[in-house]
Amino acid sequence: MNMLELIEKKRDGGVISKEEIQFFVDGVTDKSIPDYQVSAFLMAVLWRGMNDEETTDLTLAMANSGSICDLSDIPGVKVDKHSTGGVGDKVTPILLPIVASFGIPCVKLSGRGLGFTGGTIDKFESIEGFCTSVDPSEFKSKIENCGLLLGGQTADLAPCDKYLYALRDVTGTVPSIPLIASSIMSKKIAGGSDAIVLDITCGSGAFMKDIDSARELARRMISIGKLAGKPVSCVMSSMEQPLGIMVGNILEMQEAVEVLRGRGREDVKSVVLTMAAEMLKMTEVGKGKSEDELKELCNQKLQNGEAFEKFGELVLSQGGMLQSDGSPVYVDRPFEVMTVHAKKDGYISKCDALAVGEASCLLGAGRMEKDDVIDMGAGIRLYKKIGDKVSRGDELYTMYTGTKAPVGEDRIDEALYRMEDAYEISDSAVSAPKEILDVISFK
Amino acid sequence: MNMLELIEKKRDGGVISKEEIQFFVDGVTDKSIPDYQVSAFLMAVLWRGMNDEETTDLTLAMANSGSICDLSDIPGVKVDKHSTGGVGDKVTPILLPIVASFGIPCVKLSGRGLGFTGGTIDKFESIEGFCTSVDPSEFKSKIENCGLLLGGQTADLAPCDKYLYALRDVTGTVPSIPLIASSIMSKKIAGGSDAIVLDITCGSGAFMKDIDSARELARRMISIGKLAGKPVSCVMSSMEQPLGIMVGNILEMQEAVEVLRGRGREDVKSVVLTMAAEMLKMTEVGKGKSEDELKELCNQKLQNGEAFEKFGELVLSQGGMLQSDGSPVYVDRPFEVMTVHAKKDGYISKCDALAVGEASCLLGAGRMEKDDVIDMGAGIRLYKKIGDKVSRGDELYTMYTGTKAPVGEDRIDEALYRMEDAYEISDSAVSAPKEILDVISFK
Repeated sequence: MNMLELIEKKRDGGVISKEEIQFFVDGVTDKSIPDYQVSAFLMAVLWRGMNDEETTDLTLAMANSGSICDLSDIPGVKVDKHSTGGVGDKVTPILLPIVASFGIPCVKLSGRGLGFTGGTIDKFESIEGFCTSVDPSEFKSKIENCGLLLGGQTADLAPCDKYLYALRDVTGTVPSIPLIASSIMSKKIAGGSDAIVLDITCGSGAFMKDIDSARELARRMISIGKLAGKPVSCVMSSMEQPLGIMVGNILEMQEAVEVLRGRGREDVKSVVLTMAAEMLKMTEVGKGKSEDELKELCNQKLQNGEAFEKFGELVLSQGGMLQSDGSPVYVDRPFEVMTVHAKKDGYISKCDALAVGEASCLLGAGRMEKDDVIDMGAGIRLYKKIGDKVSRGDELYTMYTGTKAPVGEDRIDEALYRMEDAYEISDSAVSAPKEILDVISFK
Repeated sequence: MNMLELIEKKRDGGVISKEEIQFFVDGVTDKSIPDYQVSAFLMAVLWRGMNDEETTDLTLAMANSGSICDLSDIPGVKVDKHSTGGVGDKVTPILLPIVASFGIPCVKLSGRGLGFTGGTIDKFESIEGFCTSVDPSEFKSKIENCGLLLGGQTADLAPCDKYLYALRDVTGTVPSIPLIASSIMSKKIAGGSDAIVLDITCGSGAFMKDIDSARELARRMISIGKLAGKPVSCVMSSMEQPLGIMVGNILEMQEAVEVLRGRGREDVKSVVLTMAAEMLKMTEVGKGKSEDELKELCNQKLQNGEAFEKFGELVLSQGGMLQSDGSPVYVDRPFEVMTVHAKKDGYISKCDALAVGEASCLLGAGRMEKDDVIDMGAGIRLYKKIGDKVSRGDELYTMYTGTKAPVGEDRIDEALYRMEDAYEISDSAVSAPKEILDVISFK
């Protein structure tokens, strides 16, 4: 078996066997296959696709390319969640405390963001003192402490995926559904969870630009789950516009805290409660209860303060600081740079997630390159979203940087330029889009 | 402009601009673009193709990536020839002396073979003392000496193509018609010739497996010629079976000498005379003469000994040794290992070029890897070809190694095993295939 034959086989539309995929994953992991062969193979996969068996074989081989996190010491069904990424996505810091407040252990291992704003890890690190470097040997005690743990992925978690992910990023081989599905699922399986709930975002600000691609990705991940014996549920949510009204690290954490306090916008709550219900369905708590009953139970956790209390326990458990009112102490604060107002009357017909994400990144909220330092205070607050009525002179959005090392004026100008494309105002009424597009699952 | 954008553009089926192709070629040549991006791009090109403008832009940029050989000092139209490669292809050592014997200067720059048997350079180096390392500064004096020069490509000739060619070889990106066409044409243009005649081989032993691919490749090269202002003529010849009866380095040179002496088989002569006529058409000699008249003039050069004399002058001009009868002194001699006989009566219906080529390579006549040393004496002599009547017990073929460092028994066994697939004998009569499938040109 050699790599050239594998490339040629896939290039010509063939199906790669389980043994061949193992050979590939072994060779990528021990670096015996040169990267120029790996990238040619990845482009051939993007071109020719992979069937469900190939995709599952790749997923499992990548999951096993490092150590598998063993959570069997922790009692109960461990349910993990993952989002394919979006702009303004603050679901995790709200969702996990809700689920944990039912006594369900939650271990969430996240990556850092390479997207427009930071990843979940980055967002939690906007809290003073919060430490995400948790050694797997401490998992059990942390879980006993507060029932909830949020850690960064260790280098040893699916190292083959880590290598492929970095290579795909620079070789134009990201938008392949089998590669996206196997990348996500390999990390989730290596993370040791028993069941997985996925938020597949869909729209301008997401990897999946349309609902058909999102459904295909969902179908793939469910198929991998079936073949790997792990229940998988996929929530497809809209990412035409940002989720909620805050985009940035501290800004998103602030909005999450609003929701945890029983306030906050319905669109954020809608996604959070749908995801939470799917997670509960996979546990004892969900048995015999309808979707609506489960959502109502979860909403109660927001209203009665239990979820917010659990969030506070998590922050303290991982070394973070809280204010006297229970909300976090942040490493910086958003500094208002500019507020832009509507130029005419009408209805918001576009609030483009991609444009808002890119503008936030320009303001310092995300990484342009891998080693960039994120400005935790940077980001954008939206005052209007699609469907909202607007009058000339109304506030549309505010741009922020942090106070410590803000980006220069040229970057702010670029962000403003990008934001000018984000909004469109129509003369006729526009209806607000649905947040949840579909839910499909295998249990 | 960055390489990732170029990959994504081609991946999505876009057209690469002249400036972008220049950026690519510059980056490959100065190695500022990493090879994993280059290989991903090549696979995207294989997938999506390139139009004629892209292919010509790539060709010219690659030709200009090193120094362009300046032959303007040498009077007359300089016509170059190239073959896309075949098994038993001994056209060059016969063709060039014929053309040169008309007083037309011939400068042929060749690569070493990475195929089943050596390239033209390797074949000439089977002659004792023959030196192919000719510095461009010596071209003029060599040409004045005998009107003919055969040199190895210098490292500085189209270095971008050299790098891409090596990378394509190990990344499954060889069989792309625009890449094949631009690779060949870039070297021919950098070689400084005024007009180009191409032998596009077609069949099991060639890159182009069918006549449609061969025609498409021809169409591409003619289009490049048009856009680059160089007349191009393409002869499509069959490579279902080897050309002639000898495969190997000394063996092929021996068969070439037979033809140069006015003997030799009609199939070899047919390809040589067709190519020679095309070359003459591009010069003063060809003016006002028909294809058949030109072929007859060339055949006279074989019959009256002028071509053979010119061949001897070339050998001596480049330091090679001749025997008293004018044939070359070789560095070794073919040593007969085994002769295989027909197992039944009938007609030869298959004499597979690919199988014979691979078997020859196993015997030592070609390179399995880039730095392998060729066994000049190794190869195969065929006694029967497609259409020939055969009786049980007739000799079919003889396998040879050299005498100095022959391959081991395992390689000989493998070669024999491969040869067993090469021949098929049919009960009913079979007609011999045509050598020349088509000729198309732009002048």
